[in-house]
Order: sequence, then C-alpha cells, then structure tokens
Amino acid sequence: MHKTILITGGARSGKSVIAEAETLKLGRPAVYIATAEAFDAEMEARIETHQARRGVEWTTHAEPLDLIGALTQTDGQGPRLIDCLTLWLSNLMHAGRDWRDESAALCAALAKQNSPVVLVTNEVGGGIVPDNALARAYRDAAGELNQMVAQEADSVMMAVCGLGMKVK
Amino acid sequence: MHKTILITGGARSGKSVIAEAETLKLGRPAVYIATAEAFDAEMEARIETHQARRGVEWTTHAEPLDLIGALTQTDGQGPRLIDCLTLWLSNLMHAGRDWRDESAALCAALAKQNSPVVLVTNEVGGGIVPDNALARAYRDAAGELNQMVAQEADSVMMAVCGLGMKVK
Amino acid sequence: MHKTILITGGARSGKSVIAEAETLKLGRPAVYIATAEAFDAEMEARIETHQARRGVEWTTHAEPLDLIGALTQTDGQGPRLIDCLTLWLSNLMHAGRDWRDESAALCAALAKQNSPVVLVTNEVGGGIVPDNALARAYRDAAGELNQMVAQEADSVMMAVCGLGMKVK
Repeated sequence: MHKTILITGGARSGKSVIAEAETLKLGRPAVYIATAEAFDAEMEARIETHQARRGVEWTTHAEPLDLIGALTQTDGQGPRLIDCLTLWLSNLMHAGRDWRDESAALCAALAKQNSPVVLVTNEVGGGIVPDNALARAYRDAAGELNQMVAQEADSVMMAVCGLGMKVK
Repeated sequence: MHKTILITGGARSGKSVIAEAETLKLGRPAVYIATAEAFDAEMEARIETHQARRGVEWTTHAEPLDLIGALTQTDGQGPRLIDCLTLWLSNLMHAGRDWRDESAALCAALAKQNSPVVLVTNEVGGGIVPDNALARAYRDAAGELNQMVAQEADSVMMAVCGLGMKVK
Repeated sequence: MHKTILITGGARSGKSVIAEAETLKLGRPAVYIATAEAFDAEMEARIETHQARRGVEWTTHAEPLDLIGALTQTDGQGPRLIDCLTLWLSNLMHAGRDWRDESAALCAALAKQNSPVVLVTNEVGGGIVPDNALARAYRDAAGELNQMVAQEADSVMMAVCGLGMKVK
C-alpha cells in the first residue's frame, strides 16, 4: 500500500476530487488538512464548496503554516489529505519563512508518518514567463517543492480534465 | 467504437491536427463546427490557416453559441468536430449566458448523438494565478467545463508537442 | 538506441535534470550546448546552478543562435544536450531572425547527426491567453517549434514534478 501520494494538476483540473477519493481508499474516516485561509469572499466561497463536497467522513484541520505539527497531531487518526502545497508555499513566503528548509523538513516528516498522507499541489509553470520577479520566484519555488515531494512520494498522479494520469 | 472524444492541450500543442485526424478515422466526409468568430486580423489568420489545412473532406458550420442546435442539425452527416470548447465558453460568458447550465445541456446532448463527436478544448489552468478576477473566473469555468465533458466522453487525449497522450 | 530525444515540461519541472541523465545514458563525456546568455544577476544565478550540478563529465558550448554550427562542430564528441529550445527561439526573435526557417533547418540538421542529441524545451501554452500580442506570438511559435522537433525526435518525454512521462 502506498503511504505518500502526490496529486498535481492545473487550476480546476479536478485535483481535489481525485485526492479525496484516493484518501478515502486508504481508510475512513479521514483528516483534511486545509492550508487555505479565508481572506476574502472569493476564497471563502472556494473553501465552502470544498467542505460541502467532502461531507461527514472527514474531520478538518486548518493549518496555513505548520504542516509538520498538523501531521504529528493527526498521525494514527486515519489517512490525511493536505490541500494544498502551493498555498502552503504562498503562506510561507508571505510569512517570510525559508520555504526550502521547510519543504525539506516536510519531506523528512512525510517519511516518518504511520498513517498515509495524500498531498495536493498545483502545476503553475506551464504558461508564459510571468512579468514580475515575485511571480517568477513563486513558480520556481513551487516547481522545486513539487519535485522534492514527488521524490519522497510513493506515487504521483497528474489531474487532467478531472481524470488522474499516473506519473509515478 | 468511441462516440465522444475530447482532445485537450495547451496553446499550439497540436490539438486541432490530432482532432482532425481522429475525426476522419470515424468517417468521411466530416463536419467541422467552428466556434470562432473573426473579430480581428489575428483571429482571421488563425481561422484561415485551420481551414486551408482541412481541405475538401470537410463541411464547415460556424456556430459561436448554439452548439446543441449545430449538433442536432448535423447528426447523421458524419462525424462532427467541435473546435473549440474554450472559445465557446468565452462566447457564452461574453453573451451573458449561464455557462454552467449550457455546459450541462451540451453534455446531455452529446449523450444522445447518433454520429460521433470529437471536441477540442484548451488547458488554461497550468500557469500562475492570473491577476484579474475575470481571467480567474474564466479559467475556473474552463476547468469545470473540461471536467464535465471529459466525464461524458468515451475517450480523452491530451496533446503535447503535437502528440496525443491517452488520458481516458 | 534513440538518436534524438526531446524533453519538454513547464518551468522548474525537472526537465534539465532528466535531460542530463538521459544524455549521460547515451555516452560519456557529454557536450552541453547552452543557449542562455547571462544578461542579469537572476539569469547568471540560474546558469551557475545548472553548471555546478553538471560537474566534470561535461564540456560546455555557449551558443545563443547558431545551433546548427554548434551541432556540426561537436558531432563525434559524444552525446549533445541542447538546453533549451525556447530560449533559442527567444534569441532568434530578439535578433529578428526567421524562427520558422531556422527551426526547419535545425530539424533537418538533427536528422543528419552521428552523435545523439537531447533537446530541452518548455511548455508555455498551458496558461490563460496572454494580454499582449508579442507574448501570444512567442507562445504560438514555441508550440510550433516543439511540434516540429517532436516530429523529428525518436522519443519525447514530458517532465512533471521531476519525473519523466513518456509522450513518444
């Protein structure tokens, strides 16, 4: 049985739905670790849509920064779904944290979990080079983070039109 | 034999060429349902390039909005190629129509066709989050539309560098 | 044994690492043909990171424009890695050269090589349609160039999260 699964894909490619299904295959109930914080109405609407879809088989932990703490705290409570890594990265950068160190620490923590972990991330590097340096730095960091976690993961899937393609 | 085929991919990934070949495998002559309208010289040049490539085995229906009407009208005339869904979505949004209702209706209509249908769409969610809310709403809608049609489709392919990868 | 291999993928998808590994599978030592020019500190840092990773098994040729010359000059010296095509395209456009002619000539030259060639390119068409016409022209050109080289290539891989997916 796979212990760590990474689901990547573009915006609205169906990553979350696939990740939720993969998580529930690994056990029930499951723990949803949300990295999103509701700053505005648009984000709030997205969070509510996701929560409504998941239903009663899930308990939710909101954790924008300390994913290792969230994993430690929920280990043994069933499979965990972290949704999503790119938002976590954005939170780290916004908070002035060293994303590379934190990503390495996350990968080390993933290797030590007893309960499985499914992680959702985003493909953000498939468009034209962004105009501003911050956006370039962010997409570079997201790409490196994705590579680090994919290296650690037992299986990697890419969501395309709501369907999962096997990458690893 | 597959009845409904969805071909997705980024800009200039070779989607249309692959879709045309897939359509002609399903029968000749074929019907090309174009959602494009020539607003400017750039768009006109793209349309002409596509038409010149297709040649005499195709009849063309230009239909920016009423795809269900176009499908009803052409059913029984050979395989149909709809190129493309994301432009249709853009036309719907521009016309103030409810794209989600129209997309659901399109999927219901696809299920009832006698002649096969090949649909081209675009991957637009693989870059950095766009700055403006309209672009975000559009890429979210495109992603949902793609998922809906992929769910209905018998087979889904992704074009990469002019080559088709099997997704479903 | 494959003679021409194309590795595509988004920004920071791990293309270069995969391409270097594929190149060294084809022989050692290998030749690195760099299309990058260090205009600013950001670019210089990227080039240095890449060079440090490659180490002593590589000799480096910097060639922003004349890839055919670089291929002719290095044929027989082991497998060559061209990194990357999209930067070459950008250099061509910046220099006012006819990228389509040059791309066709490159493909013709690839077909005549004795030593293998691995080429890295970028997926740039997976985001929202860019606002400005130059960016649209560039991503269209990149897509066409990728299709031309993929047609010529014996094998094509797409990098996702540092992992290679077989496309051809």
